[in-house]
Amino acid sequence: MASVSEILPLEVIDKTIGQEVTILLKDYREFFGTLVGFDDYVNVVIENAVEYLEDKEIKRFQGKMLLTGNNIAMLIPGGKPVSE
Amino acid sequence: MASVSEILPLEVIDKTIGQEVTILLKDYREFFGTLVGFDDYVNVVIENAVEYLEDKEIKRFQGKMLLTGNNIAMLIPGGKPVSE
Amino acid sequence: MASVSEILPLEVIDKTIGQEVTILLKDYREFFGTLVGFDDYVNVVIENAVEYLEDKEIKRFQGKMLLTGNNIAMLIPGGKPVSE
Amino acid sequence: MASVSEILPLEVIDKTIGQEVTILLKDYREFFGTLVGFDDYVNVVIENAVEYLEDKEIKRFQGKMLLTGNNIAMLIPGGKPVSE
Amino acid sequence: MASVSEILPLEVIDKTIGQEVTILLKDYREFFGTLVGFDDYVNVVIENAVEYLEDKEIKRFQGKMLLTGNNIAMLIPGGKPVSE
Amino acid sequence: MASVSEILPLEVIDKTIGQEVTILLKDYREFFGTLVGFDDYVNVVIENAVEYLEDKEIKRFQGKMLLTGNNIAMLIPGGKPVSE
Amino acid sequence: MASVSEILPLEVIDKTIGQEVTILLKDYREFFGTLVGFDDYVNVVIENAVEYLEDKEIKRFQGKMLLTGNNIAMLIPGGKPVSE
Repeated sequence: MASVSEILPLEVIDKTIGQEVTILLKDYREFFGTLVGFDDYVNVVIENAVEYLEDKEIKRFQGKMLLTGNNIAMLIPGGKPVSE
Repeated sequence: MASVSEILPLEVIDKTIGQEVTILLKDYREFFGTLVGFDDYVNVVIENAVEYLEDKEIKRFQGKMLLTGNNIAMLIPGGKPVSE
Repeated sequence: MASVSEILPLEVIDKTIGQEVTILLKDYREFFGTLVGFDDYVNVVIENAVEYLEDKEIKRFQGKMLLTGNNIAMLIPGGKPVSE
Repeated sequence: MASVSEILPLEVIDKTIGQEVTILLKDYREFFGTLVGFDDYVNVVIENAVEYLEDKEIKRFQGKMLLTGNNIAMLIPGGKPVSE
Repeated sequence: MASVSEILPLEVIDKTIGQEVTILLKDYREFFGTLVGFDDYVNVVIENAVEYLEDKEIKRFQGKMLLTGNNIAMLIPGGKPVSE
Repeated sequence: MASVSEILPLEVIDKTIGQEVTILLKDYREFFGTLVGFDDYVNVVIENAVEYLEDKEIKRFQGKMLLTGNNIAMLIPGGKPVSE
Repeated sequence: MASVSEILPLEVIDKTIGQEVTILLKDYREFFGTLVGFDDYVNVVIENAVEYLEDKEIKRFQGKMLLTGNNIAMLIPGGKPVSE
């Protein structure tokens, strides 16, 4: 097993600032946008988000959007799954 | 990737005071009104709210309304999605 | 946008003491009565409450009623929606 | 609006010690009995409780019963609704 | 109303050590056994438990069983309802 | 009632280290294995777990498995119910 | 019973850094990948994850993925069940 450099969850988020990210909520709603902020409770702010439901685009938003941490299941820097 | 100025979630809310905002609850209820206050638990106060369900207006309220933080999924300054 | 005086959520509740208020629980039950007390956890005490379900009156209560904060979704000073 | 003496939620509970009370749980189960104790988490102890479901008596208990705070939706001193 | 000696919830549990108790979980499962321990989070330990579902015995356990506090709805010293 | 030596919930877990245990999750999944560790949040580590659903074996695991505390309903040292 | 060396839950995670792991969420979604980070809240970071639903592969991801702790039910170093 090639050695892996360990990284803290909040560091992953920090390194994603200014980049694309996919956020999956606990109720399966999915948002793809640019990550512009976060805090210790994993509340996050994304910009110009596109909302997907079962991989189909359903809504576009302009500007910022705050997603509350206690409702987030997953955060994926870069965002899109490679294959299905 | 153009550089992005990082912003904390509570800063986003603070900068939205006095402006229109859409608040989505965890049970999909949606409220559009003027943001007049908030606290560290993301409890928020909006004014003259309009309630939407699946993008259809269903109720108008006059005056202030407090929405409890542990039931909020999303907060969108400016509010309305650009397109669907 | 006319300037708006910012107000903390607990201040909204405090200013509503002695006045009518509508409390909506997370399970959509709705109570309309006089607000007589609250605490930092948004536990609230109302008096002579009327219970509504989908805007139809279903029960009247005499005296005080405590509603626990972690089950409250919304608090609306003055109470009744303007129009539907 | 006649002036109203403000009262803290825990004070309401404290003043109900030794008196009848109705406790409604988040899953709509309803217990009517004598309040004999409580703590800061709104865990409560009632005595000789009668359990109701949709206003029909379904069970009687002798002695004490502890109801955990994080499952309580409402506490109504005196208890029974005035009218339906 | 005969005067009632007030008792804290954790005191009720403490006084039940070594005695029979019924524990009802939030999902309606019911366990009847001897209470042998508890902590401040209302995690409890019972011994030789019998599991009931809708008042029918479905399982017997030998030895100790830990029930986690955040899943407990009710704790009834002595246990069995008097009448239905 | 024979006198019972009181025991704290975490003590029960501690005394079960190295022994067989059944862990029931809040969603009724059941795991039977050797308890090898735990912490104050009742996160637990078991080894060589067998997963049961309604008392039928459905999966075997080799090595360690961490079960998160806020999803655990019951922990039964020794494990198997005596009778059904 | 052969003696078992006790291990804390967070130690199990720590010893799995750089190795394969299966993470099961509370809603039964399952992710298999390389563990690259975690924190005290059992938020975890995995790399090149494969998503399974009822043991069938449904999605592959490249790069890192953060899974929030309050939504995780189980963490299994090494990952795959031995037999079904």
